[in-house]
Amino acid sequence: MTTQKKLSLICFSGDFDKAVATFTLASGAAAVGYEVNVFFTFWGYNIIKKKKGRAFQGKGILGRVFNFLMGGVGNLPLSRLNFGGISPKLMTHMMKSKNVATLQELIDAAVALRVNFYACEMSAVILGTENDDYIQVKERLGVAKFLHLAEGGQVLFI
Amino acid sequence: MTTQKKLSLICFSGDFDKAVATFTLASGAAAVGYEVNVFFTFWGYNIIKKKKGRAFQGKGILGRVFNFLMGGVGNLPLSRLNFGGISPKLMTHMMKSKNVATLQELIDAAVALRVNFYACEMSAVILGTENDDYIQVKERLGVAKFLHLAEGGQVLFI
Amino acid sequence: MTTQKKLSLICFSGDFDKAVATFTLASGAAAVGYEVNVFFTFWGYNIIKKKKGRAFQGKGILGRVFNFLMGGVGNLPLSRLNFGGISPKLMTHMMKSKNVATLQELIDAAVALRVNFYACEMSAVILGTENDDYIQVKERLGVAKFLHLAEGGQVLFI
Repeated sequence: MTTQKKLSLICFSGDFDKAVATFTLASGAAAVGYEVNVFFTFWGYNIIKKKKGRAFQGKGILGRVFNFLMGGVGNLPLSRLNFGGISPKLMTHMMKSKNVATLQELIDAAVALRVNFYACEMSAVILGTENDDYIQVKERLGVAKFLHLAEGGQVLFI
Repeated sequence: MTTQKKLSLICFSGDFDKAVATFTLASGAAAVGYEVNVFFTFWGYNIIKKKKGRAFQGKGILGRVFNFLMGGVGNLPLSRLNFGGISPKLMTHMMKSKNVATLQELIDAAVALRVNFYACEMSAVILGTENDDYIQVKERLGVAKFLHLAEGGQVLFI
Repeated sequence: MTTQKKLSLICFSGDFDKAVATFTLASGAAAVGYEVNVFFTFWGYNIIKKKKGRAFQGKGILGRVFNFLMGGVGNLPLSRLNFGGISPKLMTHMMKSKNVATLQELIDAAVALRVNFYACEMSAVILGTENDDYIQVKERLGVAKFLHLAEGGQVLFI
C-alpha cells in the first residue's frame, strides 16, 4: 500500500510572477497524482477573488479600501520591473505566443485537477470578506489545521 | 512512542506582513505542541532587535548605517502598498479592531510558548551586532547546524 | 545503510540578498554531505547567466528586452534599500572586509561542491535562451521531474 504524495503551498504573495509559480506547481503536481493543498493568505488571497478588477468589497472602511487597492487577479503586479502594470500583460502575451499556459489557464487547470483551495481565517476576518467572494474555497483554516493537512508532505511558502 | 512534530522557519524577510506570517506560524504551531525553531537572518534579524526604533548599532560605519536604515520592529515596511510606513500602522489598527493578535502580541506569544530563536552567524558578523542587542537569541548558527536542527520536520523560507 | 540527506531549493527570486541566501544554503549543505539540487526559475534563472552584465540575449523582442533589463549576476538588486544598485556593491564590500564569502565565491563553492543546477523548462522557453547561455545547467525540468528529484528531502522556495 502506498500513500498519496502531497504538496501544500502557502500562497502569501499576490505578485503576478509568484501566482504563476504557485499555480504551475499546484497544477503540475496534481497532474502527476499528488494531493495538492493551497492555503491563500494575505496578498495571495486576492488571486482567487471572483471580481477580477478593482472593487470595494468586504466590511469596514479599511478592509474595503485594501480590497480596492489590491484589485483582483487582473491587477496583480510583477514583483520587479512592473512598469505600472504593463509587464504582467506583456508577459501574458509572451506566454501565449510561446504556447505556455497563462495564469488564468493555470488557475483553471488547478480547479479542474481538484486542487484543494483553503482560505486563511485571519485574512478573511481582517478584510471582512465572505467565502462566496472567492472561487471554490473549501474551508477557512488557521495554522494548526493547515499544518495538520500538510503533514507528511512537502510545504512551500511562496 | 511518538516524536514531537517540528516546524523550522527561516525568517529572512524583514517586511511587516512576512513578520506577521512568521510569528503566526510560530506561535500557532507551538500552541499545538510543535517544537518550533526560527532562524533569523538578513532583514529578518531586524525584527527581534531590542531597540524598536532607528539606532546606529553594531560595528563599522556601513553596519551602523544599515542598522539605522532598517530601523527596528517599529519600522518594518509592508512588502506592497507601504505608503511610506502608514500601511503597517493602519493594518495594526485593523487587527486590533477585529480582535486579531498584533505583531507585537504574536512575538510575545512566541516567546511565552518557548519558540526557539536562532540568529544567523554571518548576519551578526556583517552587521557587527551582539546577541545582547536582540531578544532571547538562544544561539548563533550557520547552515549546517540549522539543517541539523530542522531535520525530520517541515522547513519554510519566509 | 543510511540514505544521503537532501536539500532542494527553488531559486525563483533574482534579488542579490536572496541569491546570497540560496548559495549560502546550497554550499553549506553540500559541504556537510547533502545532495543539493537548485532549480533556477523566473528571475532566479538570471543569476547563473554566463554574461554578468546587461546583454540582449534569447529569442523574440520581448525575451531579449527582459534579458537586457534583468542584466546578469552583476546587476542583481537588493530586495530593499537598493539605492539604484549601490547597496549590493556596499554589501559585497562589507562581506569582503569581514572575511565572509561574497556571492561570486558562494557560487564558485557550490559549483566546486557539485551542487546540481537545474533550469526551469518554461522560463527557458519564454526567454528563448539556450543551456549554453548559463553556467553548468545539468538539465531542464518541469514541475513533475523536480518534485521527483526533491522527494524525501527538504524543499525551500526562495
